[in-house]
Amino acid sequence: MRAAIALGEQAQGRTAPNPNVGCVIVKQGRVVGKGATQPGGRPHAEAVALKEAGDAAAGATVYVTLEPCAHESTRGPACTDLLIAAGVDRVVIGTRDPDTRTKGKGIARLQDAGIEVEVGRLRDAAAASMAGFFTRLERGRPLVTLKLAMSLDGKIALPSGESKWITGEDARRHVHEIRARSDMILVGRGTYAADAPRLDVRLPGLEDYSPRKALLTSGEGIEGWARLASPEDVYGLADVNDLLVEGGSGAASAFLAADLVDRLLIYRAPILIGEGKSSLGYIGLTALADAHRRWRFVSAEMLGIDRLEVYERDRTEGS
Amino acid sequence: MRAAIALGEQAQGRTAPNPNVGCVIVKQGRVVGKGATQPGGRPHAEAVALKEAGDAAAGATVYVTLEPCAHESTRGPACTDLLIAAGVDRVVIGTRDPDTRTKGKGIARLQDAGIEVEVGRLRDAAAASMAGFFTRLERGRPLVTLKLAMSLDGKIALPSGESKWITGEDARRHVHEIRARSDMILVGRGTYAADAPRLDVRLPGLEDYSPRKALLTSGEGIEGWARLASPEDVYGLADVNDLLVEGGSGAASAFLAADLVDRLLIYRAPILIGEGKSSLGYIGLTALADAHRRWRFVSAEMLGIDRLEVYERDRTEGS
Repeated sequence: MRAAIALGEQAQGRTAPNPNVGCVIVKQGRVVGKGATQPGGRPHAEAVALKEAGDAAAGATVYVTLEPCAHESTRGPACTDLLIAAGVDRVVIGTRDPDTRTKGKGIARLQDAGIEVEVGRLRDAAAASMAGFFTRLERGRPLVTLKLAMSLDGKIALPSGESKWITGEDARRHVHEIRARSDMILVGRGTYAADAPRLDVRLPGLEDYSPRKALLTSGEGIEGWARLASPEDVYGLADVNDLLVEGGSGAASAFLAADLVDRLLIYRAPILIGEGKSSLGYIGLTALADAHRRWRFVSAEMLGIDRLEVYERDRTEGS
Repeated sequence: MRAAIALGEQAQGRTAPNPNVGCVIVKQGRVVGKGATQPGGRPHAEAVALKEAGDAAAGATVYVTLEPCAHESTRGPACTDLLIAAGVDRVVIGTRDPDTRTKGKGIARLQDAGIEVEVGRLRDAAAASMAGFFTRLERGRPLVTLKLAMSLDGKIALPSGESKWITGEDARRHVHEIRARSDMILVGRGTYAADAPRLDVRLPGLEDYSPRKALLTSGEGIEGWARLASPEDVYGLADVNDLLVEGGSGAASAFLAADLVDRLLIYRAPILIGEGKSSLGYIGLTALADAHRRWRFVSAEMLGIDRLEVYERDRTEGS
């Protein structure tokens, strides 16, 4: 299942509105097929893996991060039908499909065909690997990740406006990887003016995966870019699982004030700036107590001499 | 030697101007004596450990973090004489004494008495455990540690001034431990007005170890407190090994602008504040390039839900 999750994660940012599923087929201890959801959402991971396995799929065990789909589509047959036709012996599923067209039906159909089904293997990790898809189905909007790059004291530029560079090459390369895993990246007007040419994925082999772009502005939009008049417009982004808010300070603050950030990526350089431009402006806070119990530390790592910290919005306990 | 270093570290903040040395005496695989420099600097660690060992010191091995002193003092005999008189077999030393009254002489005197001497066991760790003492002898001023407590975005208060609390109990308890390991703590006038009653060590068993206090001010001083008109006045603090700059933003910025901070302790709560008071003001920076290659990441740890990061001023390579 870990291998299936890893496969699915590699497809993140390119399958929306479909989930980025991963699938591995094992027969007699040997991997005979593997696949992930293809760009645009089809073929599904199971179809890719079954095709690779060919006749070897008969009698095999299929590891798949998400419950196989049970609904016919003009874009291809239901994966449950493919699995049954291939004669697989057993299907191990990470997590159920929240899509009401499939939820539970995929499992039932496999069981009706005499296939042994296990559900919930590495459920949390499997769900986390498709967090954008789950967020979209559960909340009606993409998972919103906010990127902040700052000094140790939270600054993003000198008083003069000088901001190149705060973080180093390793951190900036990591941002490109995150872009490649996003369906859409959003900036405010100021960042567009300053950085528009740079909002691409510049990693060898990933140049084609530059996500769609969006501008947060109450004014005029840009041709070819989505336009969001306010953060709440994310509810209108029907085909985006993962949205990356790149900045600047105004766009970041607007999304935080609207409580529409699910995940923080904080890239911090080992420098102090002191007087300068803050990473955030007004985010709607009037009392310190309200700032607490909102963010949960997830992980920290070094990227060269810089550090990346990941925090998640804690939406449990009514926080 | 690790045990000796740990003993010495526990004495940090209470031995200045003497070093916080640790000593462990081992005979036939058993610890027969241990000690650290006592409050005020005397007796020395070796004297304490030898007293505990008694007759068992004869033929034993002595682990001591710093070269035993070779100079007589009205406050007590030289440790080398004590070790020779006790008939120890072998002395393992962490690092040489930079004090010119002892440097090398302690080792030579032990060897002349027929005692086997090893120098440099865990040298770096031993020196680090007495970093304040070494800094004072090498630079003529205490090791300066700057404490910053902030939100993830580098803020220390709301626009209203509300600042209680940003970090939680575990982090604040840690600050008290750091205070107990400092010979002196310094604040600016604003922090004095707001927090003076709080600048004590409030830890069970450590209430007596509250360090001396200093005020950074160009104005009038406070009775019983040292007064520094500018950060450069640290060069006049002859009997302070470890100085903790507690804040606020003005004092912190002044010390950074003077390049008189050796170590940063950054306590960060998992909150975002946005608009508010920054942790630092002007620190003398006019170009971003000058901000780089000054700070080296040392360690990070969780303190409850908060995080503590330690950075050290990198003074190598002319940075």
